[in-house]
Amino acid sequence: MIKNILGTNDFMEFLRGKSATFMLCLSNTKTADIAGITQAGIPGQIYLTPTLDSEFVTCGEVRSLENIAQTPKGVPTPAILTRASHLLKPFSNIELLNLGIKNLPRIDYFQTHEFGISVSGDITTGANIDAMDVFKKGLDFGQEYECKDDYIILAESVPSGTTTAAATAVALGYDCKEMFSSSFKEVPDDIRNKTIENALFNIKYEDDIFAKLSKVADNMLIFTAGFILGLNNKTKLILAGGTQMACALLIVNSILKQMDGHLKTSNLALCTTKWVYEDEKSDIKALLELNDLKVNAYYSDFDFSLSEHPALKLYDEGEAKEGVGAGACVAYALINGISKKELTKKIESLLG
Amino acid sequence: MIKNILGTNDFMEFLRGKSATFMLCLSNTKTADIAGITQAGIPGQIYLTPTLDSEFVTCGEVRSLENIAQTPKGVPTPAILTRASHLLKPFSNIELLNLGIKNLPRIDYFQTHEFGISVSGDITTGANIDAMDVFKKGLDFGQEYECKDDYIILAESVPSGTTTAAATAVALGYDCKEMFSSSFKEVPDDIRNKTIENALFNIKYEDDIFAKLSKVADNMLIFTAGFILGLNNKTKLILAGGTQMACALLIVNSILKQMDGHLKTSNLALCTTKWVYEDEKSDIKALLELNDLKVNAYYSDFDFSLSEHPALKLYDEGEAKEGVGAGACVAYALINGISKKELTKKIESLLG
Repeated sequence: MIKNILGTNDFMEFLRGKSATFMLCLSNTKTADIAGITQAGIPGQIYLTPTLDSEFVTCGEVRSLENIAQTPKGVPTPAILTRASHLLKPFSNIELLNLGIKNLPRIDYFQTHEFGISVSGDITTGANIDAMDVFKKGLDFGQEYECKDDYIILAESVPSGTTTAAATAVALGYDCKEMFSSSFKEVPDDIRNKTIENALFNIKYEDDIFAKLSKVADNMLIFTAGFILGLNNKTKLILAGGTQMACALLIVNSILKQMDGHLKTSNLALCTTKWVYEDEKSDIKALLELNDLKVNAYYSDFDFSLSEHPALKLYDEGEAKEGVGAGACVAYALINGISKKELTKKIESLLG
Repeated sequence: MIKNILGTNDFMEFLRGKSATFMLCLSNTKTADIAGITQAGIPGQIYLTPTLDSEFVTCGEVRSLENIAQTPKGVPTPAILTRASHLLKPFSNIELLNLGIKNLPRIDYFQTHEFGISVSGDITTGANIDAMDVFKKGLDFGQEYECKDDYIILAESVPSGTTTAAATAVALGYDCKEMFSSSFKEVPDDIRNKTIENALFNIKYEDDIFAKLSKVADNMLIFTAGFILGLNNKTKLILAGGTQMACALLIVNSILKQMDGHLKTSNLALCTTKWVYEDEKSDIKALLELNDLKVNAYYSDFDFSLSEHPALKLYDEGEAKEGVGAGACVAYALINGISKKELTKKIESLLG
């Protein structure tokens, strides 16, 4: 039920039955305030999405708003896939990473790592991130982090994160603008491409990697690149996402090339959803193949073919696709004995 | 599937997927010899109930008697809920605490902590407990205990324990006589109230807390109060029971008030059954609200609505209700991905 995008299935098979820490990166970029750029949340309150997603995954309730975040089309957040997986086969541990959010989640007990990182700016005018600082914080966190479980599933909730990821990868010189996914079925190419183009206008020829990241990236991308390098293959890590996580890997690649550095990647993998993998408007596989680093990549062969729920059917029609680690979390459930049917039923039950 | 009685669900959600040590307090009080005071066991052999419960939970067999303990009405011990939870989602560890029982369970391998505590007396004539000694033993055990798991589920098997608990809380000055549960549907108010009244006759105005406990409590209540204080919030602890565990918390409260002491309770919770929560003849919530200590409290939203078994239906009719940590153990199963249906089937299978 887990399919290979790149590499063999050994890595994922090895994790069958093993314990996982689920780590969720929460970040706001003001890029999400651009009208129509994302459907990851409620218009006017898009910034709340990471907050609500983290509340829902950990405690099963959205506390900072009355109802669970839905897109204008009524597509429920992919956090429902994550939560359903956790209900059926609980993660041993959940930790949150505050990478610059406007509203802190209202939860107790669950560890929220604080890094003193601010909400990043709109990339059309400049994200205004201290990229070296955020990168170093990710690096330090990776170096110091001691996982009590067998592996880490690192996920993200960053509205408009695919736009910042596309801008970042292009700014770093990768020929990939068309390879990026979006939460929309009808990708709002005009708004999105215009945003990316405007962002890239700010890049100057003499900008080094970190200068570029400061202008067009988001905190999650930069922090995650640092984290991967800091962790340095000591702990098994699944990057739980699609094109955004692929971009974090491209940042790692660029930094390594500039430093003439090396990184073992035997303990590193990416896992996303079938919706991202099959998306005709993006190309996760090509994006990963642009990378000099060879990283195992998978998608969970899960869709809503067993469901009749109209809100879930929208996923199969190409809306939403990924986020909050949905693809990797479904994979986690599947490699731990949970069936597609059980998952479908549990997800349906969360919609009430 | 876990509902809040007091506080938020964060504590319980945090424990999802985490490992638990199940600790079972076994104690006899001669109060249980009073004819008709409890239905927790076989008339004439009520004293065997903790012994049989511990054998059944650990090894799935009652060894010190031919048949599993049933009440005269045929209500099977709540240990079947505990055992079923353990079968479907095993505790990482089970330990027994001998707090004064007549017959030791006939089991190997499982650690039974011995404290040199004797069976306590009938509270109508005086329980005759060295309360300070039992309390200190609980305190020391809590201070020294190093849990290898993420949390402890502390349960009890003490026939007539709700009667001693009611007498204790009233003796300590709490206005709560009507708030206590009983294993009976038709609470034998005459016998029970008479017992409590007779017990309270022995209390003298000048008696301090420990003098009162010596006369009307049972070893489990006193030891557990010491254990909670000794553990001092260092390990997450679920008090697995209803009104008896609420009484242990009231003892802690009384001791703290007298000493002008404080206790952090962030790692402390109580969890009971739906039958206790919904019982019209007792009031677990009010009992907890009498306490100055704020403790998260939950009940597992589990009943036998999916079963047709007449013996189990008696639970839904108000018999048995709680014991051997049934409510918390069901919660443990539920937060670890076991469904109500699976639990029901497993419990049915234990009845043969």
